[in-house]
Amino acid sequence: SRNIRLAVIPGDGIGTEVVAEGLKVLEAVGTKIEPTHYDLGAARYHRTGETLPDSVLEELRGFDAILLGAIGDPSVPPGILERDLLLRLRFTFDHYVNLRPVKLFPGVETPLADTPTEDIDMIVVREGTEGLYAGTGGVMRRGTPHEIATQESLNTAHGVERVVRYAFEQAKSRPRKKLTLVHKTNVLSYAGDLWQRTVNRVAEEYPEVTTDYSHIDAASMFFVTQPERFDVIVTDNLFGDIITDLGAAIAGGIGLAASGNINPERTAPSMFEPVHGSAPDIAGQGKADPTATILSVAMLLDHLGLRAEAAKVEQAVADDIVERLAGWAGRTTHEIGDDITARVSG
Amino acid sequence: SRNIRLAVIPGDGIGTEVVAEGLKVLEAVGTKIEPTHYDLGAARYHRTGETLPDSVLEELRGFDAILLGAIGDPSVPPGILERDLLLRLRFTFDHYVNLRPVKLFPGVETPLADTPTEDIDMIVVREGTEGLYAGTGGVMRRGTPHEIATQESLNTAHGVERVVRYAFEQAKSRPRKKLTLVHKTNVLSYAGDLWQRTVNRVAEEYPEVTTDYSHIDAASMFFVTQPERFDVIVTDNLFGDIITDLGAAIAGGIGLAASGNINPERTAPSMFEPVHGSAPDIAGQGKADPTATILSVAMLLDHLGLRAEAAKVEQAVADDIVERLAGWAGRTTHEIGDDITARVSG
Ligand SMILES: CC(C)[C@H](C(=O)O)[C@@H](O)C(=O)O
Ligand SMILES: CC(C)[C@H](C(=O)O)[C@@H](O)C(=O)O
Repeated sequence: SRNIRLAVIPGDGIGTEVVAEGLKVLEAVGTKIEPTHYDLGAARYHRTGETLPDSVLEELRGFDAILLGAIGDPSVPPGILERDLLLRLRFTFDHYVNLRPVKLFPGVETPLADTPTEDIDMIVVREGTEGLYAGTGGVMRRGTPHEIATQESLNTAHGVERVVRYAFEQAKSRPRKKLTLVHKTNVLSYAGDLWQRTVNRVAEEYPEVTTDYSHIDAASMFFVTQPERFDVIVTDNLFGDIITDLGAAIAGGIGLAASGNINPERTAPSMFEPVHGSAPDIAGQGKADPTATILSVAMLLDHLGLRAEAAKVEQAVADDIVERLAGWAGRTTHEIGDDITARVSG
Repeated sequence: SRNIRLAVIPGDGIGTEVVAEGLKVLEAVGTKIEPTHYDLGAARYHRTGETLPDSVLEELRGFDAILLGAIGDPSVPPGILERDLLLRLRFTFDHYVNLRPVKLFPGVETPLADTPTEDIDMIVVREGTEGLYAGTGGVMRRGTPHEIATQESLNTAHGVERVVRYAFEQAKSRPRKKLTLVHKTNVLSYAGDLWQRTVNRVAEEYPEVTTDYSHIDAASMFFVTQPERFDVIVTDNLFGDIITDLGAAIAGGIGLAASGNINPERTAPSMFEPVHGSAPDIAGQGKADPTATILSVAMLLDHLGLRAEAAKVEQAVADDIVERLAGWAGRTTHEIGDDITARVSG
């Protein structure tokens, strides 16, 4: 079979460091994956003024998958790289499923007191292409006392239904078979009504799945007080952004949280990235935990149909984590990568 | 001096139960407060179709303050009572400051492991009259595969600046003098830019206050992993909604979280309410904790200039909480109210 073509975008800050470890593991697990690097991010922006040239975007379209480190640097005004690079990739390649497991690995400490490992085990299916991320809105009389700034949340039946269907499929495949819609229907009544009606309608096709609803404010509270309420969550782009960072926090921290930006129809490459950002404050110091990227590599392998390899990487991470209790604090980014690499090679 | 006129809206579910205890404490602390009850909420809506008649709204305007229990019932479609009653009061009376302390009382258990009491002590200044709560937006082709539903976030220089100024005043009056703007400037670029510019500009008038910024997703994480980062937070209506429920969770639960919907210029009555909802599942069972309402009564007293009485109520709650460790689980709503009442009378 032909080699799998992987586009690699290390990006900014710790992105480069963690991606290097991810690739090391990918190679060690024995796949025919051929990586091509793209230097997108703050450095290129400063050098050339480019964020994501159209020609590069079209090249990327030809790959089987994309591995991304992290995007963002304080030297670039907020929003530029996020919108013109990261969100442009998600939108152009129709990554309408932003899949973010929230799972507490045995041996990992959660900041929540008295929470058994098995209580934190959910999957958040975050919509990835619409809502407030559409970026529409505007400003009038900027800088004056009469300034008005607007943002628009755009939600379509097409966009909501496809992600809701994906979430029902996920729920159906899990032992608990429970799907919770998280929204704010009592205030965002137009969008909330579309989301709730869509869940209700699709639910009829999934009689084996129990459906539930939680307002985003209550859900945030439940993440901390009763995380066992949740199995699969489906939610919009912004609520999903917030709740998955909270999810990362309760499941042992942002150093472990993986994600996939998925185009389920495979009309364009899916993109895998750690949930964490570029963390400029610790960049270049070997302090970043590459585990989130390595788990994102496992999701990538799974997406490409390499289930055995994916399972091997996941198991290596789980084993590595169990042994962390002894020596975690001391290890550098490289050392963690090396330890996990050794496990998948063995 | 003339009696203070208080409008009381017990509302739905546990609202009635907790408000009764709040009034008991208010009476016992020895104020010349004369309450007038208004039966607004689900029951009235079903009886008469009315949520908040204009005539009642105008009557309410004449009071010195409003005490509200909780609004909302599953028998009423989501959004109706919230929008036409609760939010209408906040908007009409220009409650642009939604003040929500997040403070861990000594003796209260937080769900966060190893978090010392003093690490959770902040005030969230949530904007209360604009943003996505404006309710603007719409729907087209409803119920068809081509449906589109929009929501708009409206942000004005006027609306942002006044709440930011209030937050700086709060920060200035506290020992740590730190103000954190919470937003999502990298995605909501028009609104985020207005908020960030406003904070930067007003900061020049408050050289003694340290300012900081956190994205809403990161802030949600920090609430769980490093709550000590925060002293005063200023944020928009929706982010404030989410983060204060999360704040309630880490500070011992929604049973203790108080809030004030404040009109600082006193052009209309301010309104005090527990952060929790009407909790229809436990309504009428004497299971609700009235402490959040009693602490809201303390905020009300403070707002009315009755500082000594406010302090007395707060102290009574703090003392009651310290003794909870022994016998909390057994007490009913009434019993907690009675215990706190006994302390303020003593
Ligand atoms: C960097 C930012 C635009 C992004 C988002 O908001 O989606 C990030 O927070 C994430 O969750 O992947
Ligand atoms: C009931 C609801 C409209 C309200 C809000 O979203 O503001 C509540 O959650 C709150 O925080 O007071």
